[in-house]
Amino acid sequence: MCKEAGLLQKLIGLCSRYGYIHPSCVLGRSGVKGCYDYGPLGTLLRRNIQNEWWTSVVSSQEDMFGIESSQVQQTSIRNTNQSENSSDDINDHRRLSVIPSSDKMQTQEENLNWTLRDSLNQGTISQYYNTLQLVSRRLPFGLAQIGQCFRRTGQSESLTDDDHDRYIFDLPEFTQMTAQFYCSPKTADRWMIDWQRDRIQWWRKFSGAPSSFQMSETKQSELLRTTDIQFQFPWGVETIERISNRGSGELERLQKETGVDFHGREGRKNVLPQVVEMVCGLERGILALLLDAYQEKERMDSKGQKINHRTVLRLHVKLAPIKVAVLPIKGTKEIIEICEYLAKELRKRSISCHRVNELGPVIGQHVARFDEMGIPFVVLLSDKTLKTGVVRMRHRDTMITQQLHITEVRETIERHLEAG
Amino acid sequence: MCKEAGLLQKLIGLCSRYGYIHPSCVLGRSGVKGCYDYGPLGTLLRRNIQNEWWTSVVSSQEDMFGIESSQVQQTSIRNTNQSENSSDDINDHRRLSVIPSSDKMQTQEENLNWTLRDSLNQGTISQYYNTLQLVSRRLPFGLAQIGQCFRRTGQSESLTDDDHDRYIFDLPEFTQMTAQFYCSPKTADRWMIDWQRDRIQWWRKFSGAPSSFQMSETKQSELLRTTDIQFQFPWGVETIERISNRGSGELERLQKETGVDFHGREGRKNVLPQVVEMVCGLERGILALLLDAYQEKERMDSKGQKINHRTVLRLHVKLAPIKVAVLPIKGTKEIIEICEYLAKELRKRSISCHRVNELGPVIGQHVARFDEMGIPFVVLLSDKTLKTGVVRMRHRDTMITQQLHITEVRETIERHLEAG
Repeated sequence: MCKEAGLLQKLIGLCSRYGYIHPSCVLGRSGVKGCYDYGPLGTLLRRNIQNEWWTSVVSSQEDMFGIESSQVQQTSIRNTNQSENSSDDINDHRRLSVIPSSDKMQTQEENLNWTLRDSLNQGTISQYYNTLQLVSRRLPFGLAQIGQCFRRTGQSESLTDDDHDRYIFDLPEFTQMTAQFYCSPKTADRWMIDWQRDRIQWWRKFSGAPSSFQMSETKQSELLRTTDIQFQFPWGVETIERISNRGSGELERLQKETGVDFHGREGRKNVLPQVVEMVCGLERGILALLLDAYQEKERMDSKGQKINHRTVLRLHVKLAPIKVAVLPIKGTKEIIEICEYLAKELRKRSISCHRVNELGPVIGQHVARFDEMGIPFVVLLSDKTLKTGVVRMRHRDTMITQQLHITEVRETIERHLEAG
Repeated sequence: MCKEAGLLQKLIGLCSRYGYIHPSCVLGRSGVKGCYDYGPLGTLLRRNIQNEWWTSVVSSQEDMFGIESSQVQQTSIRNTNQSENSSDDINDHRRLSVIPSSDKMQTQEENLNWTLRDSLNQGTISQYYNTLQLVSRRLPFGLAQIGQCFRRTGQSESLTDDDHDRYIFDLPEFTQMTAQFYCSPKTADRWMIDWQRDRIQWWRKFSGAPSSFQMSETKQSELLRTTDIQFQFPWGVETIERISNRGSGELERLQKETGVDFHGREGRKNVLPQVVEMVCGLERGILALLLDAYQEKERMDSKGQKINHRTVLRLHVKLAPIKVAVLPIKGTKEIIEICEYLAKELRKRSISCHRVNELGPVIGQHVARFDEMGIPFVVLLSDKTLKTGVVRMRHRDTMITQQLHITEVRETIERHLEAG
């Protein structure tokens, strides 16, 4: 779904206007190039995507465990891993090391052992053995992790224009969502297919045009199989998630090195498991989902004449940062109080809510703003609400307005959220 | 509630045994000193605490917005802030800078501009202006953020034994949960009191001995007021959260520097807001809550004679990483299948579930293990379940076992979770 040129620029404008994402800055002074901050809407979108991923890959699964490991790692060990883990190159193995800013010359030597991680791989593999004990060596099981990683972007201070063109696609600081699934070599192919299906379905579920998320088998050797989930970005097709069967080579090597027994049991057999791995770049995913959601439509006046473009951020109802905008058609004190009460009721049920007290002259302008912000529902309260309790609820995607009683608002939104 | 000596050592042992927290390592080789990894249970505990904080401080509040800013920041600006933000010293202003590991000598100069943040303060203040626009300059509103920060721990490579004694209390890599609330100077005192009450209640809600969380006014000048929430650690009383009224000095200074208008509106007045700030160290909080939950009780046999100590991790039901253990009294195929079905039903409702298929000879041993892991409920399935559908449910805290129908298990646990 590569739309017209300039799409990315328009999306960047929208993101910056509405507090989704903007270049890192400190009150007017620009911050570190290539770093971005997430405003209120962007933060909620990030959280929603991470939570959906976690639910899908960890909490709803049997024998998937979440872990967290530290961002600071030892260089020497990373180097060992780097030479062998060919499937990590989704995130370019260039890395940043950490050294204290004072006493630089003295501490340089010893601090070569420290580095900021460039992937979650080391953290995950290092917890394999502990978790093997926790499940009494029973395979299969998996380890999942969400965490920030760092990458050296060539000349860190001077990003090329080309880099900037890709917005948040490739950042020096990025978030990985990864899972490693340990299973017997016999069942690995089946698990690989299962996970591939799960993952592509997960992406497509949130998309207005599911076919824009595609699977592509990029490498195939006898030992290593890799499948990418790709999205058509304005500048071309790119990978947003990689699923690979990494075999059991790494565990075998580590077993030799450490002398620790890494075998698990599947059924009655003792096996060294193969590792089916999913690695997903959160920021790439966010950008893909935002691009997928961005739509421009022609807006007609009542006589069917084109007025202008209507921009809608059709984010899936589960991902939309704010689910509902509540606003009074007249800003009288009584109506505002009811708005406040309704918003409070919705917040109690974890339904994020945007409230406006002061209406501009034209309601349509407000609603157009909510469409751009990606709010799926708008609830309008009027004089009529005071008398009969009836409110109007407008749906972003269908543009249909329905009338319902104020006590039904919460339930109606919850129903949409569950169905979504 | 400072219990007997050696408490910390026992807790560390438990955390390491059950996959809560262990020193960062790579399969037998030790990792970076002073860095810790979170196993499956520790990760869930972290997530639960963060989510409870987020719900309490952000989603259930009016006009609180979540944000996320990048970990990499500009040194020059940080330095400016550092000299002025006296209330940040909860996290020692020693910092790590980032420079690429290769081409070290060449890039050192330019990379002095880069540093890893040591607090979330800069990231939050820099989003003040953007959010002021989002709310049409209407005060009060707040910005909240959870994120990782870094601190230089003296000689980074050689932590003293003293540092190690404090376990995860002071780490080179730590997580802050902060909120800054912007309100008119007139109302600031009232908001300060409101937030203090909210925050101490939040901590006490999760504690078995609420009085072990105390408030202490540490500093008071005419412009700056600071209150600490403190916990009695085995080595002494320490601060786990700081609430301060930072006044409007920082915004005033930045307004002068940048020429941007930072005034908001409260009622009909234009005011430069004061900042009420909450800063909480997540790892300190985790350690406090774990210590608070650790209990040793004498265990009696049926004749009332003391057998040994029974260790219980009485984590609050909302924080407990795993809510329920499901296990068969006899491991027949039929019963195991029902266990699997029940676990699946619970997972669907986001109730984390520990499943055991193979019982050792003594059920009591298993149950003791679950107590140590901090699992609040144990559900036992037996032959009887196959015939009548009745299961036994044991409560960790009361040690009472009740009989109920298998279809009531989910609802009973959900009721406990909601009441918690």
